[in-house]
Amino acid sequence: MEIVDKPRIGVVGGGSWATAIAKMLTENNGHINWFMRNIESIKAFKVLKHNPRYLCEAEFDLDKITFTDDLDKLVMNSDVIVFAIPSAFVKNVVTTRLHLPLKDKVVVSAIKGLIPEENLTIGEFLHQQYEVPLEQIVIISGPCHSEEIALERLSYLTFASQDLKVARAVAQLFECFYVKTTISDDIYGTEYGAVLKNVFAIAAGICHGLRYGDNFQAVLISNAIQEMERFVNTVHPMQRDIKFSAYLGDLLVTSYSQFSRNRTFGTMIGKGYSVKSAQMEMLMIAEGYFGVKGIHEINEEFKVHMPITNAVYNILYERISPTMEIRLLTDELR
Amino acid sequence: MEIVDKPRIGVVGGGSWATAIAKMLTENNGHINWFMRNIESIKAFKVLKHNPRYLCEAEFDLDKITFTDDLDKLVMNSDVIVFAIPSAFVKNVVTTRLHLPLKDKVVVSAIKGLIPEENLTIGEFLHQQYEVPLEQIVIISGPCHSEEIALERLSYLTFASQDLKVARAVAQLFECFYVKTTISDDIYGTEYGAVLKNVFAIAAGICHGLRYGDNFQAVLISNAIQEMERFVNTVHPMQRDIKFSAYLGDLLVTSYSQFSRNRTFGTMIGKGYSVKSAQMEMLMIAEGYFGVKGIHEINEEFKVHMPITNAVYNILYERISPTMEIRLLTDELR
Repeated sequence: MEIVDKPRIGVVGGGSWATAIAKMLTENNGHINWFMRNIESIKAFKVLKHNPRYLCEAEFDLDKITFTDDLDKLVMNSDVIVFAIPSAFVKNVVTTRLHLPLKDKVVVSAIKGLIPEENLTIGEFLHQQYEVPLEQIVIISGPCHSEEIALERLSYLTFASQDLKVARAVAQLFECFYVKTTISDDIYGTEYGAVLKNVFAIAAGICHGLRYGDNFQAVLISNAIQEMERFVNTVHPMQRDIKFSAYLGDLLVTSYSQFSRNRTFGTMIGKGYSVKSAQMEMLMIAEGYFGVKGIHEINEEFKVHMPITNAVYNILYERISPTMEIRLLTDELR
Repeated sequence: MEIVDKPRIGVVGGGSWATAIAKMLTENNGHINWFMRNIESIKAFKVLKHNPRYLCEAEFDLDKITFTDDLDKLVMNSDVIVFAIPSAFVKNVVTTRLHLPLKDKVVVSAIKGLIPEENLTIGEFLHQQYEVPLEQIVIISGPCHSEEIALERLSYLTFASQDLKVARAVAQLFECFYVKTTISDDIYGTEYGAVLKNVFAIAAGICHGLRYGDNFQAVLISNAIQEMERFVNTVHPMQRDIKFSAYLGDLLVTSYSQFSRNRTFGTMIGKGYSVKSAQMEMLMIAEGYFGVKGIHEINEEFKVHMPITNAVYNILYERISPTMEIRLLTDELR
């Protein structure tokens, strides 16, 4: 499939990552369509010229945006559709609000997570349940906190697709003076990597909360990237270098950055908060909380050695004490 | 060579890393000999029961230590000798103060750097100029800030030797409730990795000083570990996994930790300090300042693609503006 010369672009989602994506896409391209579920958010956005709840420091030129709360309308008017909503909501949003086919669109996923219950990657979900050809699916990844996009700090994104021409065309839509892009043909590894890095960031947070230091964190992350490599090379074997920014870089920024929600969630767990009270305190659920369950279930088939993932699963779902579980984990690392 | 059952241990050096090493070695072993150049430091140590200048929070049982400022005496009375002094001083200390052979000793290097001018690793220096058989040389590496050893935070060390039995025996001397150990047969890669990580930590600091953010740092470090792999695999090809703690972990702790002197030095350069004023302000010279020169010179022969190392070299030795040099570097990364 060839992407049309000046494709009409649609963005789906109203959170901070969707807002960062809209910011990048409006830097050089003329115009975007933007779906938000909440009409009140759209109204407030139009008054304030920024997202009322997320990434407020990013100002927008309203002439470049057509807002809608009608997903069908957005899909009808767009050639390239970028999904940036939490993975837990994807199925609900798409099944209840979308009545048009996606199979003649280029569908870009900026979602970092699995479809719950089915444990499908977003690519698999779009392909299996919405008949989007694999060559029209693009996965965005990379070490990229949306807060730094708002600040226009130089960031690198990777665009993965089975059709590298499509990946390149979509990547070009995002390039601007603070965004550099690369392309990749590894949609599965990129998606699983993005799920796992959230799990490992929770582990890093738990250990931080338990007062393990920087020396230990470095060992944890070194073991985590090896665990990621074992998993993706088993589940979807192909030639890949796990040290590329899309995998290792993404893990690093999520595990080390102050902006990481998954790490913050883990830190609270390590400090003794229950899962429920940590979630209430944060007013949100960290993606890795769902991610670890999905990976754990997928791995029942593949049986990859995943001590860090197992430790996080045991702490969050089996109510094993973090102190005990991480002490056992320390004997598995090296 | 077999290590004797209860080897007599000698530590050479009076800095923070030497002090951390002495602390680990006195946890479970009866006794150590400890050489410091400065007799006043020894006197003060005996009064205070801690190092008067470094790692003051680490208290020692003086019954376990025999201090000396006579390197010959230390060598005579020790079977295993651990060197923990800055690489720039090694040649001077050894040539002026040691008149006994080392070739029947197990010599352990905790030095992270090259011998200036000759650009030899410590292992090469000991082997070529002091006839220490390679099987009796052990290199210590790992993500390990001495400050966290003082705090008894769990840390992992790697011991590399061509004779894994010797590596294992030396590793056991260091094991205690806050230190876990692994062994490796890669003395060259371990040494070069330790030099390079200081260079990359300077790069991370420079970029931080120039106000690049966390997204960029993650890309920089992902590229740095690939650069390290290219270099060590070219200079000393063998089977190794650069994602192990001894390489990647060491890079992470040095590049991300607040305790890292090389990163701090780089940050000052990025903020506009001259090399000289940064060194004066810090009252010391960051190891990576010498390391980058050595690697740059070694690489004149091997011609490995090393954009990060070259950027640091150009900034520190060719007086190219950090802003300019790092902007050029951003086009080389992905």
